[in-house]
Amino acid sequence: MWQRKIYLDNEPVEKAWEKCQGFFSSRGLIRPLDTERIPVAKALGRVTASPVLALISSPHYAAAAMDGIAVLAKNTFGATETAPLKLQLGTEAVEVDTGDPIPEGFDAVIMAEEINYPRDGMIEITAAAAPWQHVRAIGEDLVATEMIVPANHLLRPYDIGGILAGGVVEVEVWRRPRVAIIPTGTELVEPGTPLKPGDIMEFNSKMLGAFVEEWGGEPVICPIVPDDYETIKGAVREAAQKAEVIVINAGSSAGREDYTASIISELGELCLHGVAMKPGKPVMVGSACGKPVVGIPGYPVSAALTFETFVKPIIFSKLGQPLPEKPVLEGFLARKLPSPLGTEEFVRVTLGQVGGKVMVIPIARGAGVISSLIRADGILRIPASSEGLEAGGRVKVELLSSPDQIEKTVVVAGSHDLTIDLMANALRQAYGLRISSSNVGSLGGILALKSGEAHLAGMHLLDEETGDYNVSYIQRYLPEQEVVLANLAFREQGLMVAPGNPKRIWGF
Amino acid sequence: MWQRKIYLDNEPVEKAWEKCQGFFSSRGLIRPLDTERIPVAKALGRVTASPVLALISSPHYAAAAMDGIAVLAKNTFGATETAPLKLQLGTEAVEVDTGDPIPEGFDAVIMAEEINYPRDGMIEITAAAAPWQHVRAIGEDLVATEMIVPANHLLRPYDIGGILAGGVVEVEVWRRPRVAIIPTGTELVEPGTPLKPGDIMEFNSKMLGAFVEEWGGEPVICPIVPDDYETIKGAVREAAQKAEVIVINAGSSAGREDYTASIISELGELCLHGVAMKPGKPVMVGSACGKPVVGIPGYPVSAALTFETFVKPIIFSKLGQPLPEKPVLEGFLARKLPSPLGTEEFVRVTLGQVGGKVMVIPIARGAGVISSLIRADGILRIPASSEGLEAGGRVKVELLSSPDQIEKTVVVAGSHDLTIDLMANALRQAYGLRISSSNVGSLGGILALKSGEAHLAGMHLLDEETGDYNVSYIQRYLPEQEVVLANLAFREQGLMVAPGNPKRIWGF
Repeated sequence: MWQRKIYLDNEPVEKAWEKCQGFFSSRGLIRPLDTERIPVAKALGRVTASPVLALISSPHYAAAAMDGIAVLAKNTFGATETAPLKLQLGTEAVEVDTGDPIPEGFDAVIMAEEINYPRDGMIEITAAAAPWQHVRAIGEDLVATEMIVPANHLLRPYDIGGILAGGVVEVEVWRRPRVAIIPTGTELVEPGTPLKPGDIMEFNSKMLGAFVEEWGGEPVICPIVPDDYETIKGAVREAAQKAEVIVINAGSSAGREDYTASIISELGELCLHGVAMKPGKPVMVGSACGKPVVGIPGYPVSAALTFETFVKPIIFSKLGQPLPEKPVLEGFLARKLPSPLGTEEFVRVTLGQVGGKVMVIPIARGAGVISSLIRADGILRIPASSEGLEAGGRVKVELLSSPDQIEKTVVVAGSHDLTIDLMANALRQAYGLRISSSNVGSLGGILALKSGEAHLAGMHLLDEETGDYNVSYIQRYLPEQEVVLANLAFREQGLMVAPGNPKRIWGF
Repeated sequence: MWQRKIYLDNEPVEKAWEKCQGFFSSRGLIRPLDTERIPVAKALGRVTASPVLALISSPHYAAAAMDGIAVLAKNTFGATETAPLKLQLGTEAVEVDTGDPIPEGFDAVIMAEEINYPRDGMIEITAAAAPWQHVRAIGEDLVATEMIVPANHLLRPYDIGGILAGGVVEVEVWRRPRVAIIPTGTELVEPGTPLKPGDIMEFNSKMLGAFVEEWGGEPVICPIVPDDYETIKGAVREAAQKAEVIVINAGSSAGREDYTASIISELGELCLHGVAMKPGKPVMVGSACGKPVVGIPGYPVSAALTFETFVKPIIFSKLGQPLPEKPVLEGFLARKLPSPLGTEEFVRVTLGQVGGKVMVIPIARGAGVISSLIRADGILRIPASSEGLEAGGRVKVELLSSPDQIEKTVVVAGSHDLTIDLMANALRQAYGLRISSSNVGSLGGILALKSGEAHLAGMHLLDEETGDYNVSYIQRYLPEQEVVLANLAFREQGLMVAPGNPKRIWGF
């Protein structure tokens, strides 16, 4: 009782993963291992376990590359438009369509456009042919035994076409690594269950399972396990039978009931306990029953970020794939961000382009706020060595959205209003635009418009002297700026638009 | 017989699609239409058909955000480390773990670190609490009725977590548009069939089906249809029953047996016949039996490129999604590229970084060479208004590979050698490197090394005077450049490496 949470390690994120990678590599735990043979037509997104070699050449015969007649080139020399040459159909010229085999004894094709209509079994050609003209040679595309794709190649639609063209109908691919996800916590209930106070909906396993799917693995979602040491240990043992990677998702009440570290130590080895990242500190990495095991914190944002940091590279490694680099975008930080020294902080941000500048707008930082990840366009990582970032500074953001989506973002600040949700939907359907809204209060919205950091702001400000809403505040704070004020259903609801850039973007 | 192929249109690519889009829109043929309700846990990669609103707040009760004790803040005022305060356990302080409900009558949490161990039912606190300190308010993450994601939103793992957090277990999504692909051609045989001259393996439908899957549709691959007008017409009618989009893949013998245009006209309307793109000219777009229909040429490269140009936007449109912009990279063209005036040419290129410069290396241009698409890192589009591009010019390439893959590419020129295939495999496994090889002959390889456009070149050049291989050519053409020559299994096989950059890249 009143136990203090103790983290053995406080390694910086990169070093922590390096340590884990060394641990796994030296024990052979993250090599690709099992292969399976599957039909090529079902192999989209799978990774080859061995090079795929062509069984046949493509084309597998000399083929006409044009519609026309097959000829022996030396019989055609001298033919021109003014001095056409006559050839005997059947013996000296044979009609062929694109793809037809070049008959024995012929070596070129004259295209239909250079032929005059046949008469009395003869045909007239108005051009000579060079040998092998308009003929696709055997193996022009693929030569039998040639490598079509190497091992550890992620199969795309083109590859599927090319492999079939080489006469190969089955490929050997790495098995998708199965990742068992064990949700633990006596307070957890399945989604859809009516909730009592203290019940927590267990949705992490479904979110993490979706990540596994996206990364090319196969999620094995285990039933919820209550906070009982032996029961959790049994669940880990069972998971080790069914999967190549084990993930234990700790209940959110981590204090008395956090058994993960001891269970890992008992069933295998604990390599890492605690990492200097926020959110996500209480992560654990090790092995259990000869499988890599990762203990993930319970708060959904911590769970998502640590899963990406520690489980994604295991999955990619087991598929023989390098970890893809994340696209990065540079922008200007919209407001000051203090951050704890000694911990790398992962701040969710939205992005929007206001007047040519990409604005980086931090959103809620709570580890429990999953909606912050839904709204985020990217992650801003504040290094452990920094106490925070100044407003207006240039920062690099790891993108979660595509860059063209950011150009199509309407940046909304100020007081939130339900009409903004309605508008978001309408703008999306009508113009393909997206809204990125930060609730910074009515006055914050006015200031964001003033500094060119938002396209639009919501406000609900009562002027107690006049008893009227909004107008006097705009006159006071934005005396020189042209704005359009739209009054909504109720007179206290106002939406300001700074014309110019948004006009162009929205097509008003 | 001897029919000339006539294309009704020769529209530039962008205009051609705009024309088709107008045609489809005015007839309501590419709107998203059907929806289905599916479990949230299975909704990864699907697109919402309506906004998803939270059914419950998250958290749905005021919850402890820390392990510690719940207190009434006003009872704690004045407590400090030097003047701790005593509270009665049970009435004035209740032990809570993270996530536990705050009991009735309490409004703050004091964390375990600020508590001294209890004695005689009393507990000592060394800090005062502000009201609502360390308490997660109801709806901190999501408020019931709040929109979690809008309509037409592509669902990612985060969204799945957030939607479940909002108490929603089923979502309404757009049905995946079913795309029927009809391979036509008397010469076609299924992959795996032993081939006679003239037989053509039908692999396009599998490649195109994989694209449909990748873009979020559902492929419906129809059996091969011989070149018979009524049979093809029947197949189109049948496809219209089973799918929302119909694709007719013409046999490669397009001359006498190209019935697609007439069938489209008979069953619906032909909107476009022929587009100024190479490869891909003989594309057809229209409607049949009230469904969008696209006629795609038979050669695999033409098929892939026209499918992407004309079918991809239909699928995205039916999913309510904007067409994603393609990532573009700028580089230097490695050799002169003549191109026909009046036709936009889609040239497959490989990319590699040699000494800080991105080299754009054109590869085989034949429409039948599917291996060119497998090897391609990108597509260089030469505008219809251009007769070609000069060597060394800056060009923009639409990427098929990721930018970090290009940095990890070893650019090989020169004479091809089977050892290069073996090396490709070994380099990939050992260093995660990829080889991009252009077979430009031994002398071409030497010149590529000389101009800094390749890391490595294969050569097999006999010096007839000395009877020896390779060395004298290097001395003659690269007198001032340091190169390493590796002799392979046979003395005529040579591989040259230009040191410097590749050393760094390869970790030699």
